[in-house]
Amino acid sequence: MNYFSSDFKLGILGGGQLGKMLLYDTRKFDIQTYVLDPSDEAPCKIACDHFFKGDLMNFETVYNFGKLVDVLTFEIELVNLEALAKLEDEGLKVYPSPKTLKLIQNKGIQKDFYIQHSIPTANYKRFPNLKSVVVDILDSKLKLPFVWKCTEFGYDGNGVKVIRQISDLDNLANVECIAEEMIPFKNELAVIVCRNPSGDIKTYPVVEMEFHPEANQVEYVICPARIDDKVSEKARAIALTVSEKFNHVGLLAVEMFQTEDDEVIVNEVAPRPHNSGHYSIEASYTSQFENHLRAILDLPLGKTDSKVAGIMVNLVGEEGFSGNVIYENIEKILGWDGVTPHIYGKKQTRPFRKMGHVTIINENISEARRIAEDVKNTIRVISDKLNN
Amino acid sequence: MNYFSSDFKLGILGGGQLGKMLLYDTRKFDIQTYVLDPSDEAPCKIACDHFFKGDLMNFETVYNFGKLVDVLTFEIELVNLEALAKLEDEGLKVYPSPKTLKLIQNKGIQKDFYIQHSIPTANYKRFPNLKSVVVDILDSKLKLPFVWKCTEFGYDGNGVKVIRQISDLDNLANVECIAEEMIPFKNELAVIVCRNPSGDIKTYPVVEMEFHPEANQVEYVICPARIDDKVSEKARAIALTVSEKFNHVGLLAVEMFQTEDDEVIVNEVAPRPHNSGHYSIEASYTSQFENHLRAILDLPLGKTDSKVAGIMVNLVGEEGFSGNVIYENIEKILGWDGVTPHIYGKKQTRPFRKMGHVTIINENISEARRIAEDVKNTIRVISDKLNN
Repeated sequence: MNYFSSDFKLGILGGGQLGKMLLYDTRKFDIQTYVLDPSDEAPCKIACDHFFKGDLMNFETVYNFGKLVDVLTFEIELVNLEALAKLEDEGLKVYPSPKTLKLIQNKGIQKDFYIQHSIPTANYKRFPNLKSVVVDILDSKLKLPFVWKCTEFGYDGNGVKVIRQISDLDNLANVECIAEEMIPFKNELAVIVCRNPSGDIKTYPVVEMEFHPEANQVEYVICPARIDDKVSEKARAIALTVSEKFNHVGLLAVEMFQTEDDEVIVNEVAPRPHNSGHYSIEASYTSQFENHLRAILDLPLGKTDSKVAGIMVNLVGEEGFSGNVIYENIEKILGWDGVTPHIYGKKQTRPFRKMGHVTIINENISEARRIAEDVKNTIRVISDKLNN
Repeated sequence: MNYFSSDFKLGILGGGQLGKMLLYDTRKFDIQTYVLDPSDEAPCKIACDHFFKGDLMNFETVYNFGKLVDVLTFEIELVNLEALAKLEDEGLKVYPSPKTLKLIQNKGIQKDFYIQHSIPTANYKRFPNLKSVVVDILDSKLKLPFVWKCTEFGYDGNGVKVIRQISDLDNLANVECIAEEMIPFKNELAVIVCRNPSGDIKTYPVVEMEFHPEANQVEYVICPARIDDKVSEKARAIALTVSEKFNHVGLLAVEMFQTEDDEVIVNEVAPRPHNSGHYSIEASYTSQFENHLRAILDLPLGKTDSKVAGIMVNLVGEEGFSGNVIYENIEKILGWDGVTPHIYGKKQTRPFRKMGHVTIINENISEARRIAEDVKNTIRVISDKLNN
């Protein structure tokens, strides 16, 4: 199949920042792209060849869009699965497969999958709704504390809560959920795996998510993780197994915990380019986005090693600011070696909205870490208006 | 000035592959772009915010386009200078300045400029037309052999010819030209300088153009050049001087010869992103395109050092093929470590048409050189039709 400067059509469901970064590589290879997104202001709207506005959860919309393209992929999991399944049944190449996505979209099913394939993960129990969780606690069948997770539509910590006392359940949605054992961990790690339909498979180096000591928020994604090689090998091996068991095609970001006794257990996965791989644009031989593209087109996978150490800092809207975005001090951080801001293109900021990220690369990881902290303490995503 | 996700408008004259690669960075920074190009199929047409079709040599077209934007730059020198000069007089920021471009567009004026500023360059004589060259030869005022160069509108070896006997002048255009002394050289070198209006200035490492032994054609651009450090320092120092003397803003690619006695002399310059800097996308801390953008917006310049060794191979249309382009064996070279093809997006190939380039990066330059040769011998730019 000739993908390059040809009539071949790649369809992408979702037109957000992940799609936007994927489009750098479709442009580089001159691959024709069709993008579907509900927003008129989607970051992908320019740089794709054909943009369509529509609801990603609507069967007809997704099905009809899929009929226009030769290969279909997505940059967000919240898409209409039935439409994808029908398209795949009708012979369209849909990567990742809806069969895989079905196993991942629901965290209860995802956890069951790990157990079935003896992939290490924290103990859990599934519940049809919040009420039955309460009942189990009252019957002391469920011990406090535990981690509550709604099984669907959670993202960015949304839909996850640590329950230390029964009252912590107040105001949580009465939806299907799981209760997960709290695992004390040393590090939160992630490994991105890429795999093509021919079965070529590669892992990126293990990255480390460094959390803010007080606020339970990832502050830095650090590549390579500053951990023992044995733990790295273990993490990469587990990530490979997860990808193979899912028979996954494309990118799979495997999030893991390094326990206090240096065991590695799987937390959850994302079947797409992932925040923990953004550093790869500057630091890796092949970015995660290029490798996603190579994978879904069944091209050979690119080298996943790093050229230099890379650290990523997310740019999220400051509390107290809403309106036209201003990146305060961005000129200042641009003056520092190896600092590259990525601005996603959202014109309006809101508290905690993901507006972009900054990559810091350096031959020396400690130096990169020092600069990353300066970046974090210098740039601010504010607006021309204060909230009232 | 707030450039990022704002109403700021950057205008780019020319929508070819250089503009296309520049747009990766305007997208990354979410800077609004306006592009003017004569072709409906310009590679920039998608990925810019607003595309205008029009003649770059037409005063009205360029002037009116310039009136739409806040800062104006170009990716090709063949633009209407009078329009740029009027826009600059009226207060528009035009980078590089038409004053600089005026000194560069005409090779006779460019050579005079080097002499005025004691910048080493080959001896030459200016001629108003071809006839007067013939007269000088007959009067033996001009010795054979020499290099004939038309002063304007030459590009890619076009408009340059080695004259060994008077009959070599046959069929050359009877236009303003120069006759330049033939300098035997060891190496053809280039240094890209970036400079912003505040006067911050940086040079990229010296690159080496490796020529095909028989065909007098650049085959590989190699960074860093495999030359003595003293020669590198000399080349970078000369490039800095050239940029400062031109009071240049943006990128200036300075092409030089390393003579047999290790002198470095200037051949010619290009006031824009340059083929000799394409390797920087993969190999450098900051690509030449990002640094062009930083320079013309008077932002701090990015680090110009390399992360790894880089080699570029141009992809030009094979002789004998015209029509819908096919990149034969591209899947094969994608399987090799550190190999990245860039497809410019021209749907039709023609003999010697620049269709793309391939970058090879590696920690070891000899290994990169070996892979580059394999790339060169493997990928072919052909078409679905043979010429007759």
